[in-house]
Amino acid sequence: MRIILCGFGVVGQSLVKLFESRAEDLYAKYGLKPRVVGVFDSKGSAVNPSGLELNKLIEVKKKFGTVKNYADTKNTMSGIEMLKNVEADVLIETTASNYKDAEPGMTHIITAMKKGMHVISVNKGPLALAFPSLMELATYNQVMFKFSGTVGGGTPILDYAKNSLSGERITSFAGILNGTTNYILTNMATGTSYEEALKDAQDKGYVEADESLDLDGLDAAAKLVILANWIMGMKVTMPDINCTGIRKVTTEDIKKAAKNNCAVKLIASCNKELIVAPKEIPNDDPLCVNGTLNAIAFTSEHSGTQTIIGRGAGGMETASSILRDLLDIRQEIART
Amino acid sequence: MRIILCGFGVVGQSLVKLFESRAEDLYAKYGLKPRVVGVFDSKGSAVNPSGLELNKLIEVKKKFGTVKNYADTKNTMSGIEMLKNVEADVLIETTASNYKDAEPGMTHIITAMKKGMHVISVNKGPLALAFPSLMELATYNQVMFKFSGTVGGGTPILDYAKNSLSGERITSFAGILNGTTNYILTNMATGTSYEEALKDAQDKGYVEADESLDLDGLDAAAKLVILANWIMGMKVTMPDINCTGIRKVTTEDIKKAAKNNCAVKLIASCNKELIVAPKEIPNDDPLCVNGTLNAIAFTSEHSGTQTIIGRGAGGMETASSILRDLLDIRQEIART
Repeated sequence: MRIILCGFGVVGQSLVKLFESRAEDLYAKYGLKPRVVGVFDSKGSAVNPSGLELNKLIEVKKKFGTVKNYADTKNTMSGIEMLKNVEADVLIETTASNYKDAEPGMTHIITAMKKGMHVISVNKGPLALAFPSLMELATYNQVMFKFSGTVGGGTPILDYAKNSLSGERITSFAGILNGTTNYILTNMATGTSYEEALKDAQDKGYVEADESLDLDGLDAAAKLVILANWIMGMKVTMPDINCTGIRKVTTEDIKKAAKNNCAVKLIASCNKELIVAPKEIPNDDPLCVNGTLNAIAFTSEHSGTQTIIGRGAGGMETASSILRDLLDIRQEIART
Repeated sequence: MRIILCGFGVVGQSLVKLFESRAEDLYAKYGLKPRVVGVFDSKGSAVNPSGLELNKLIEVKKKFGTVKNYADTKNTMSGIEMLKNVEADVLIETTASNYKDAEPGMTHIITAMKKGMHVISVNKGPLALAFPSLMELATYNQVMFKFSGTVGGGTPILDYAKNSLSGERITSFAGILNGTTNYILTNMATGTSYEEALKDAQDKGYVEADESLDLDGLDAAAKLVILANWIMGMKVTMPDINCTGIRKVTTEDIKKAAKNNCAVKLIASCNKELIVAPKEIPNDDPLCVNGTLNAIAFTSEHSGTQTIIGRGAGGMETASSILRDLLDIRQEIART
């Protein structure tokens, strides 16, 4: 399977390492032979239609901060040019999410779909701003569009709700979908001030470069858009979410909650309305998880409420979700 | 799809109600038209090759305590005779679990498979005593064998581990797999004695007729056998489980645990060894759920630990899992 990889940060590098370390197993068990024919980062590209050397890619990136130096003739081809000119079967889109115009990811995805390539995106931007139209574009071009890694990182929340609960009607759901804000709120529950807790989370590298994505609830809102579209069949985008972040949560709010045996959590919920906002959750509710954990509770018609808890996104977890999507595509192709 | 239903207790009746209430939806959405051609309970049978009237079945059962009176000529055909003489596509086995000889469920399942029928079992007995050989028998006879409802009731734990985590290697797991003992232990944590907590659980109808299944950990052990075979590919049966129940747990043990910010839970675990035993679990571990809840934590190579929490078995939850299995079989048949 010929792959173009857009973005070569932590996730992209983890994925390439996974390809290396599991090569034999992937081929023996699933018949999957991933061949990375192009990699693009913000400074340039590396291309080889017969497949790039994965170890060399990582070394070059480490040494020069870009894959551009992979070949002696430094390759400055952009992601879009690569997608137009290099033949491949799958685009794996891992550039950073933004919720203004979702670029460059949006153009990468559209270009790839129009060329008939399947797309795996862990970039939430394009989905948050244009989920319904991207799904239509994928259908129109008869390509598969997968995005397991956008919600829950390594925890297969989307797949669980869609497949494991097939035959069930999910009537509502609520979740802690952003680990960073959960980490801050958990720390505040021990008496730490908002500012100190934020500083600590920043020091640990948990906060996005654009801190607004975490603190104003945009990351959680983007995930809510994806869940609402995928699981509930709603056709919504970011502006449909009623979104409040955690900047105004005070230690007083948290103390008040504690008196009611509750904790304040940033909850993304879908129950008629789509809301992201801080909310008191009883301590003995399975949803009430601490630290950087994510959790989501699905309520279904006949099976009651089911909660899934797992680590949010980390490089290896997200890479592992991309691999799951690739295996799905591989299987689907084999079937048709 | 022609169905024979062995056992017509809470689960069987819930299933039939589900068929009734979702008839249109099941046909429109999944192309599934369940036709119940035979029902067997401990006192007799009801048979009609063109399909039994589902409402009437429930009325008769309610009035006479058996489906035998469905037709004027009371039908005393046994489950095995029915399986031998009535043509059907799927056996749904819901008779009570026992871990001595697993009868009559074991013979029902074997008879059906040998006749080329697909089998859905929510009866854990045959699986606990003979999982590896039943899987072989199913393969040999080219029939599907499904048992989603045996672990986690309405919570699709088996499917989650097998499908949602495909491409991942699960390295170990641990869970609270029996809601009754969890209810008793949770009550004991508030100072109630073992005897009082047991009495309360019995009054609420949570305890099996044979209380040993809950209290001595047999139910949890049976589920552990199923998980170990299905998810880890081990070929084990009940005697391979090192099993201790909760009869010897004292309020002192529980107080001691509380001092360490822990709670005592009956944990079924698979980590090289297969063990069911009371164990101290930290209060802030997602696995540490209360009341009748079930929980299971899977640890995988690249996605960390993921915990699923849900209600254990209830009639409607288990019926809903049977429906999921039926839809799977329907889809699989359509595909080939």
